[in-house]
Amino acid sequence: MQEKEYKNIKRNADIRMKGFKEKKDVADFFNIIDEKISPLPGIELVSLNKAAGRVLASSIKSQVKVPNYDRSAMDGYAIRGEETFGASTYSPIEFKVLGLSLPGKPFEGCVTTQTAVRIMTGAPIPEGADSVIPAELASEENSYLKVAESIPPGKNVGKIGEDVEIGQEILCAGRKLRPQDIGILSSIGISTLPVIKKPIIDVFITGDELLKPGSMPEGYKIVDSNSVMLDALVFRDIQIHPNIIFLEDRRELIRNALCKSNADFILISGGSSVGQEDHAPSLVKELGEMLIHGVALRPASPSGMGIINGKPIFLIPGNPVSCLCSYDLFASRAIRKCAGINYELPYKSVTLPLSSKISSMVGRMDYVRVKINNECVEPLAISGASLLSTTTIADGFLLVPGECEGYPSGANVKIYLYD
Amino acid sequence: MQEKEYKNIKRNADIRMKGFKEKKDVADFFNIIDEKISPLPGIELVSLNKAAGRVLASSIKSQVKVPNYDRSAMDGYAIRGEETFGASTYSPIEFKVLGLSLPGKPFEGCVTTQTAVRIMTGAPIPEGADSVIPAELASEENSYLKVAESIPPGKNVGKIGEDVEIGQEILCAGRKLRPQDIGILSSIGISTLPVIKKPIIDVFITGDELLKPGSMPEGYKIVDSNSVMLDALVFRDIQIHPNIIFLEDRRELIRNALCKSNADFILISGGSSVGQEDHAPSLVKELGEMLIHGVALRPASPSGMGIINGKPIFLIPGNPVSCLCSYDLFASRAIRKCAGINYELPYKSVTLPLSSKISSMVGRMDYVRVKINNECVEPLAISGASLLSTTTIADGFLLVPGECEGYPSGANVKIYLYD
Repeated sequence: MQEKEYKNIKRNADIRMKGFKEKKDVADFFNIIDEKISPLPGIELVSLNKAAGRVLASSIKSQVKVPNYDRSAMDGYAIRGEETFGASTYSPIEFKVLGLSLPGKPFEGCVTTQTAVRIMTGAPIPEGADSVIPAELASEENSYLKVAESIPPGKNVGKIGEDVEIGQEILCAGRKLRPQDIGILSSIGISTLPVIKKPIIDVFITGDELLKPGSMPEGYKIVDSNSVMLDALVFRDIQIHPNIIFLEDRRELIRNALCKSNADFILISGGSSVGQEDHAPSLVKELGEMLIHGVALRPASPSGMGIINGKPIFLIPGNPVSCLCSYDLFASRAIRKCAGINYELPYKSVTLPLSSKISSMVGRMDYVRVKINNECVEPLAISGASLLSTTTIADGFLLVPGECEGYPSGANVKIYLYD
Repeated sequence: MQEKEYKNIKRNADIRMKGFKEKKDVADFFNIIDEKISPLPGIELVSLNKAAGRVLASSIKSQVKVPNYDRSAMDGYAIRGEETFGASTYSPIEFKVLGLSLPGKPFEGCVTTQTAVRIMTGAPIPEGADSVIPAELASEENSYLKVAESIPPGKNVGKIGEDVEIGQEILCAGRKLRPQDIGILSSIGISTLPVIKKPIIDVFITGDELLKPGSMPEGYKIVDSNSVMLDALVFRDIQIHPNIIFLEDRRELIRNALCKSNADFILISGGSSVGQEDHAPSLVKELGEMLIHGVALRPASPSGMGIINGKPIFLIPGNPVSCLCSYDLFASRAIRKCAGINYELPYKSVTLPLSSKISSMVGRMDYVRVKINNECVEPLAISGASLLSTTTIADGFLLVPGECEGYPSGANVKIYLYD
């Protein structure tokens, strides 16, 4: 049957066992993603304590003022500011202390001539008062306050609506919600809010040499690493786990899984290249449209993207370094764009000098794992797509663009830091 | 009773209503945290799909080789390399194709003189063969292969143990696990691993003016924002939610809650300053030890840290901007240190020129909210500790160190980007 399959390949003139005729640029792949992928339609309502990191589906305007009253910005005494004019250490001015204004427990009376009300930060300014003298600039004894400094009217008073006005747009649609955003939404009385849905992701793991994670490697079988790695990568990006589905390398099984999937995205790990068991590319062509397949990138050149019934399908090489590189550059970009979040590479970057030169072929982007030693960048590996240890030993990676033949020792290069 | 409380304050000569006698430097606070806080003892066992982002409690060595056999790095044909020597387009060398080696399904026979085995990436190299000629450099017709290029022995063969050797230390204790780490752990047959425990955090929210999130602001009450903000901040740092506990501003209630807590850390929001209702500092002194209280920092000067029965207590000002600043600088550092993760500020940073000058008092660190416009940094707010909107309008913040009196317009400054 395998021999028959091979003859079919030859007859049907597909690309298997022939290599890619042409490899597209990484930038072409980005353009296809950017053109084809949009934030998911529809919204999800979430409560405030689930909203951080989510993306607002519509803008939020305030129905209220924050605060809803003039309040003290200090611990001290509420007074009429102009009555302190002329006060000094040598001739302090005296005020009778009428009572206390606490946050949530206002002073009920009125501040009149030469009177004061002790007041705490956040407490309502009593009627009649217009400023607050800080506690450390006054001294109180037997209900009389001595003020030795003049305070202009309005000083240390937070005006009604100073934080938020009625009708003010607090946050725009598309905002990725920060902790402080959740705080301000709470302060204006919001408890649930509409956010962009997260895509549901199916991850198909193919490869007859693979044992499931949790197994010990045995004989000619290896234990799959891509499923748990892709699980962690998808979780990093959208904080939900994908559905992981292991599939035998049988064309009908993979076809069936592609047709049955209810996910918003499918990632297929393995079988994405031009080997005779690489079913994914031809299945995508059979069931839908292949938008790009074969990229001028090392590793991860057998990456691809197609569409079946409007659903994006990402072909991810089975070699684990290629899998990481392909996911981060392509699938991750698409998934994050779909979730409405920033879709640039999700790594911190630094620029540092190279400790030795990097040679790269013009026309191909290289994903180079690097280590940082003494504030210098040491290239570790360009090739070795199957050696995941190159990415665990590395501190990060750099991308040598296609138009570049590499960098001399000492050149400043931008490094993306893993983690 | 409030009057009696005030008289007690006077008599007991505590700091309430007198201002801080002395404010410590932010660096002093950092030193105290760094000295007092260590990763939690004890370990937690987690499965691989829960392990990303966790911190390894002990180093991991491999018991196996990855791969456990020589394998092909290409789709192509396994041959004896030396038999291709002299092959060229004009005089190709012919090999008889004996069969097929697939990943997980090795060819059972032996490659002998002038024979080849079709082989896919990752498949075991058949006995007798020592190199792989890529599919695109050969042509197969009727079970005969024509090779037009010479291939050195060893070419395109991944050797046994090339990724991981037996006994090799794969990852060190203290490692924050990356997606690819999870992948390599899976490949060596690991399914659960020991990680550092996450601290349990209690957050006490005090303030009688506060309504719980989900309420509408009403009268002299405001809706609390710190609980939901701190919840999101703690979740950002350690991916578990803290316990949020609302407490009335009553000394006995707060004392009781401090004594009863089973958490590893307590954060107290509000009542941390020198106002007459600010119970937290004196309670920490009464029940344990205050390590620092009052910081030369704007906002968030009424930040503090104490220890009660070995448990760290963080005093966090109630003003929401102060709360954010105090949490990010102090409590977050401690919580992340305790969880074994990087405890520098968890924000990306960029360095850009200032569009207008910033004045700052020498001896105090300023937390300045800024906006980025046209690749320039525009300072938005230094004061306004109660105006959470300054942190939602801002793109980030910068810290003006205590020894600095500010920056002129045009100076390059390091900005931490929110989110």
